[in-house]
Amino acid sequence: MDKNTICAVSTPSGQGGIAVIRVSGNEAFRICDRIFVPSKRSNKLTDQEPYTICFGKIYKDNEILDEVLVSVFRNPHSFTGEDTVEITCHGSLYIQQEILKLLLANGCNLALPGEFTQRAFLNGKMDLSQAEAVADLIASSSSASHRLAMSQMRGGFSKELQLLRTQLLDFVSLIELELDFGEEDVEFADRTQLLELSENIRTIINRLVQSFSLGNAIKNGIQVAIVGETNAGKSTLLNHLLNEDKAIVSEIHGTTRDVIEDVVNINGISFRFIDTAGIRDTSDEIETLGIERTFQKIEHASIVIWMIDATQFSEKIEELSDKIISKTGNKQLIIVFNKIDKISPEEQAVLEDEFLPHIPAKRIYLSAKYKKNTDILEQALLEAANLPDISKNDVIVTNMRHYEALSKALDAIQRVDEGLHQGISGDFISQDIRECMHYLGEITGDISTDEVLGNIFSKFCIGK
Amino acid sequence: MDKNTICAVSTPSGQGGIAVIRVSGNEAFRICDRIFVPSKRSNKLTDQEPYTICFGKIYKDNEILDEVLVSVFRNPHSFTGEDTVEITCHGSLYIQQEILKLLLANGCNLALPGEFTQRAFLNGKMDLSQAEAVADLIASSSSASHRLAMSQMRGGFSKELQLLRTQLLDFVSLIELELDFGEEDVEFADRTQLLELSENIRTIINRLVQSFSLGNAIKNGIQVAIVGETNAGKSTLLNHLLNEDKAIVSEIHGTTRDVIEDVVNINGISFRFIDTAGIRDTSDEIETLGIERTFQKIEHASIVIWMIDATQFSEKIEELSDKIISKTGNKQLIIVFNKIDKISPEEQAVLEDEFLPHIPAKRIYLSAKYKKNTDILEQALLEAANLPDISKNDVIVTNMRHYEALSKALDAIQRVDEGLHQGISGDFISQDIRECMHYLGEITGDISTDEVLGNIFSKFCIGK
Repeated sequence: MDKNTICAVSTPSGQGGIAVIRVSGNEAFRICDRIFVPSKRSNKLTDQEPYTICFGKIYKDNEILDEVLVSVFRNPHSFTGEDTVEITCHGSLYIQQEILKLLLANGCNLALPGEFTQRAFLNGKMDLSQAEAVADLIASSSSASHRLAMSQMRGGFSKELQLLRTQLLDFVSLIELELDFGEEDVEFADRTQLLELSENIRTIINRLVQSFSLGNAIKNGIQVAIVGETNAGKSTLLNHLLNEDKAIVSEIHGTTRDVIEDVVNINGISFRFIDTAGIRDTSDEIETLGIERTFQKIEHASIVIWMIDATQFSEKIEELSDKIISKTGNKQLIIVFNKIDKISPEEQAVLEDEFLPHIPAKRIYLSAKYKKNTDILEQALLEAANLPDISKNDVIVTNMRHYEALSKALDAIQRVDEGLHQGISGDFISQDIRECMHYLGEITGDISTDEVLGNIFSKFCIGK
Repeated sequence: MDKNTICAVSTPSGQGGIAVIRVSGNEAFRICDRIFVPSKRSNKLTDQEPYTICFGKIYKDNEILDEVLVSVFRNPHSFTGEDTVEITCHGSLYIQQEILKLLLANGCNLALPGEFTQRAFLNGKMDLSQAEAVADLIASSSSASHRLAMSQMRGGFSKELQLLRTQLLDFVSLIELELDFGEEDVEFADRTQLLELSENIRTIINRLVQSFSLGNAIKNGIQVAIVGETNAGKSTLLNHLLNEDKAIVSEIHGTTRDVIEDVVNINGISFRFIDTAGIRDTSDEIETLGIERTFQKIEHASIVIWMIDATQFSEKIEELSDKIISKTGNKQLIIVFNKIDKISPEEQAVLEDEFLPHIPAKRIYLSAKYKKNTDILEQALLEAANLPDISKNDVIVTNMRHYEALSKALDAIQRVDEGLHQGISGDFISQDIRECMHYLGEITGDISTDEVLGNIFSKFCIGK
C-alpha cells in the first residue's frame, strides 16, 4: 500500500463560490503547514485539535494566494482513516489550480480517481461494496437510486453477504471434517440438513441475482423513447415533465440542466428520455433516413411513447403505424394524443373508437400545454415500468460487477446442490462451496487484486 | 435589512465528490438542528463551539438522506458576520437538492445570487468595492487578474479611496467655513493651497481612471483573433498554447476545458482567442460570407495573428492580404508561418525577403507540431499587448462601475479646478466637491441604494 500523501479538488469541477481541496496521508499536516499561515488566534495545523477549523492565508511567492478555511481531521477519525486536511478556498479555477500546484511542490501527489475512497477501503473503514456505493451515492439522481446506494454504503448488502459467507463456512466445515476422516467412511453431516443449507443459500443468492434487473433500472433509469412528428408537442411535454420535478434544481444549478436534461423522476424512479428528433418532413426525401435513425434509438428503450397531434391527425400517421409497431416489439407502447384542448369531445370519441383499435397499447389523451392529464401519463409510465415494490429492508443489487460475481456464486452453489443430490464426493462439493465463497468475497473485497481495485476506483471521480 | 436565514449550494454546480451547502442567519443553528442528528460524541449545533466540525446524519422522512460534516461559525466571526452553518454532503445532485428542500421546509429561504457577500457588506465585514472583488476573485483566471482582485478584496483600493475622501472632506470644510462667514467676505483658505489640493486629487483620480484600460485587459483578457486557412495549423497551435498552461487543470477538471477553452495565460496575462474558423474553401461560393464573418470577429480583437502554412504558400494567400490588412487597421498584426520544419532554410529565406515586405507586422516562423519557436510567439503576444508593468502596490481599476463613478468624480473635480481658477463662488465649488465625494462614496458603498446593491449582487453566482 502506497503511503504517500495525496491531494485533489473534491468539489464539482468548475467555478463556484467556494471549492474544497482535500489532502490525505501521513504528511498532510506538515505539507499544509508549509503553505498555510493561520490567523493569530490559531495554531499550526500539526498542533490543531481534530474536528476544528482554522482561518488563515495561503501564500505563493510571498503574495497572498487566498484566504482560506482549513478543517483538520486526525487518523483514524477521517473519511480515509488517515490524517486529513480540507482546504476551503474561493472557487476560482485559478486559485484551485495554484493551491494544487503548491501542494504538489511541497510533497503531495495528485490523487487518482477514487483514491480517497480506495484508502478508506484499504484502511478498513468500509468494505469494497460499501466503497463502490459511495460512487453510486454521488451519481444517484432519484430517491430510489439514492436509497439503494445509501443502504449499500451503510452496509446493508455487506451484512447479507456476511451472513451467506458464515453459512457457507459452516457448510464447508462440515464437509471438510468428513474428508479428514474420509478413510473411515463416516458421515458427520446429515445429508438432508446439508441439502437444506445449500437450498437456502441458493435461494438467497438467486434472489440477489434476480434483483439486478430492478436495481439496474433504478440506478440507470428506465429508457423511454418518444416518437412522433416535431409538431406533436414532444418538447412541450418533456419540459413540463422536467420542470415539475426540477423546479428547485434549475433555480440553483443554472448550468446543470444540460447534464440532467431529459431525465424525469416520477415517484422517485428515473425515466431517461431518448432523443428521437427524427420524424419530421415525412414527405422529404431524407424521410427514410430520419425514421431509421429514430427506430435505431427505440431499440435501447423499454418504453415507447408515440406522440400524435390530435388536431393534425392524418393518413401519414396511419402509414407510420406499421413501422412503429414492428419496431416496438415487446416494449411497452403508450400512444399519447396531444392538444386535446383543441378538439371536441366528439372528435376525441372518434379517435378512441377508430384509431388502430387492434394495437395493444395504452392510450392517453392530454394537453401538454395546459398540463391536462399529464399526471395520467406519469401514472402510465410507472405502470409500464412495472417495478416491484421495494421494501426498506430489501437488498437490491445495482452493480454489474456484483451481479457477475453473484451469478458465478450461483453457478457454484447449484453445482453443490446437484452434487449432493448425486451423492458425489465431498472433495468436489467442498471445492464448489469454496468457489462460491470466493465470488462472494470478491464483492466485499475480502478477496481482491490490485487489478480489480484499480479497475473499480478508476471509475470514480477525482477528489472522492 | 432582511434578517431571515438563507441557504444555497456554495460549491460549483454539478456532481462531484462533495458539495457544501451554506446556511446563514439568526436561525441557522436552530433550523439545521431540526434536520441534522449529530453522532454520539457531538452536541446539538446550538451548543457547538464555533470553528468546530460535527459528523452526523441528515434525515428525511425517517430515512438517512446523507452522512455529513457540519461546520459551525458564530456571529460575528463568519464570512457574513452572522451565525453560519456549512454542511459538507456527498456531491450528488439529488442529495444537494433534497438537503436544500429540507432547509426550505424548516424555515430557510433560498439565497439570492451574491446574498452571502451582500450580507457581509451590510454587516460591515467589507465595503462595497471589496465585496465586488470577491466575485472578481472567483472569476479570476490568470495570476494578474487574481492579484488585482485579491488586492482589491484585501482593501487596497478602499484605502486609496478613503484617502481621497479625507482630502476632499478637508477641502470642503475649508470652503464651507468661508461660506458661513460669507457676508464678512473673508478668505480662510489660501487659494494657492486649494488649487494644489484640487490638482493633487485630480491627478490621483485621473490615474485611477486611466488604469481602467489596463485593468479591463487584465480582468477580461486580451482579445486575439487568429485568421488563416483551416490547414494552416491553427488548432495545433492553440492546443499547444492551451496545454502548456492547463496541464494540471485538464487533469483535474475533466469537464472544464469547455469553459476555459481558448484562454491562454502567458506570464500571468490572459489572451482570449476568438474563434475565427471562417477562411476555408476560398474557391467555394460561400467564400465571401465566411471571410466576412471572420473579419467581423477581428473587430473585437486587439491583436490579430495571421497564420500561414509555409508549405502551402500560394497566390490565394497574397489575394487575402489586402482584406486582412484593411480590416486589421490599428490592431497589432503578427504573421505566423507554420510548418517550417517542412521547408528548407532557403525557402524560409525567400519568405522572409519576399512576403509582403511593405506590411508593418511582426513575422514569426515556427512549427506548432514540433513546438519550435512557439515561445517566440508567446513573447510577441506579450509585446503586442503592450501592458505597463504593475508594481505590487499600484491600485488598478478593473470594474466598469468603479470606472464610471471615477469618471464622474473626475468631471466634478475638474469643475472644482476650473472654478478655483475662474474665482467663482464657494457655493458652487463646495457643491462640486461634494459631488466628487458622492461618486467616490458610491464605489465603497458609503452611499448606496437598494437598486444599486441589487444590481451589483445579482451578477454574483448563487452560494457566494
